[in-house]
Amino acid sequence: MSSDKGKWRSAMLAMVCLASLPVSGNGVRVRGGPSASDEIRAVLDRQVEAWNRRDLEGFMDGYWRSPELTFFSNSIVTSGWDATLQRYRQRYQSDGREMGKLQFLDLKIEELGPRAAFVRGRFHLNMTSGESSGLFTLTFKKLEAGWKIVHDHTSSS
Amino acid sequence: MSSDKGKWRSAMLAMVCLASLPVSGNGVRVRGGPSASDEIRAVLDRQVEAWNRRDLEGFMDGYWRSPELTFFSNSIVTSGWDATLQRYRQRYQSDGREMGKLQFLDLKIEELGPRAAFVRGRFHLNMTSGESSGLFTLTFKKLEAGWKIVHDHTSSS
Repeated sequence: MSSDKGKWRSAMLAMVCLASLPVSGNGVRVRGGPSASDEIRAVLDRQVEAWNRRDLEGFMDGYWRSPELTFFSNSIVTSGWDATLQRYRQRYQSDGREMGKLQFLDLKIEELGPRAAFVRGRFHLNMTSGESSGLFTLTFKKLEAGWKIVHDHTSSS
Repeated sequence: MSSDKGKWRSAMLAMVCLASLPVSGNGVRVRGGPSASDEIRAVLDRQVEAWNRRDLEGFMDGYWRSPELTFFSNSIVTSGWDATLQRYRQRYQSDGREMGKLQFLDLKIEELGPRAAFVRGRFHLNMTSGESSGLFTLTFKKLEAGWKIVHDHTSSS
């Protein structure tokens, strides 16, 4: 009977250990619910919707609200959530500027572990003054507030 | 005695489980040896050394030798190791081109899990024809061949 208890304890411990193992890079999940990729895609969808209703703060909700957020745009580094919002405001909401209609294309979401992922994609901005497009690479981390962009590298020609 | 065996088995199983847990994002290691960040820095150092002796194949050894490697340069996507090498050859070793002296600056290596990391940095290229610089974001994975860049996003103004 004692030995049975020992076996039972071993089996329980094994189950707890298995449950604590990270999900695979392909997003296979131990439990139900949306995969990390689904959740990240939802963050990006919400960003596009926010942009297209001219809600920059809503758009910025996809980013890590931290001074450690980094944003690389061509050869310019912007550091921190506040400075990144400020950059977007100056670039798209100041006098004579427009936000246009945003689309994310060719999205490739790849999980790098249970709490990290990166996204490759292309943005397309349709404005009355013309079109603008370019590439981006986003590093995502799963934080307490959910999946957030901790680093954005965007470039255009 | 049977119960002791059971306890012993539980303890052993717990140790095996603990050993299989991933290292922390800060690179704390369970065992000795170089950290992931040290190994990634060594890959980047070898790339710079290879570049500066005009060894493009040596430079390319830092990249995942796969058709799935991706390279974003401003608004251009290059897919695959072979095409990326070709791009470097055309750009830096064809008639009238020079490789110059390469430096990587402001490197920030961040682990994203036991087998993934990303690197933010700036490149500086000193050529007889002038200087060139820009930003890069590299996604690294620990593969069988060691830490390799699986995605490179480079941009300049």
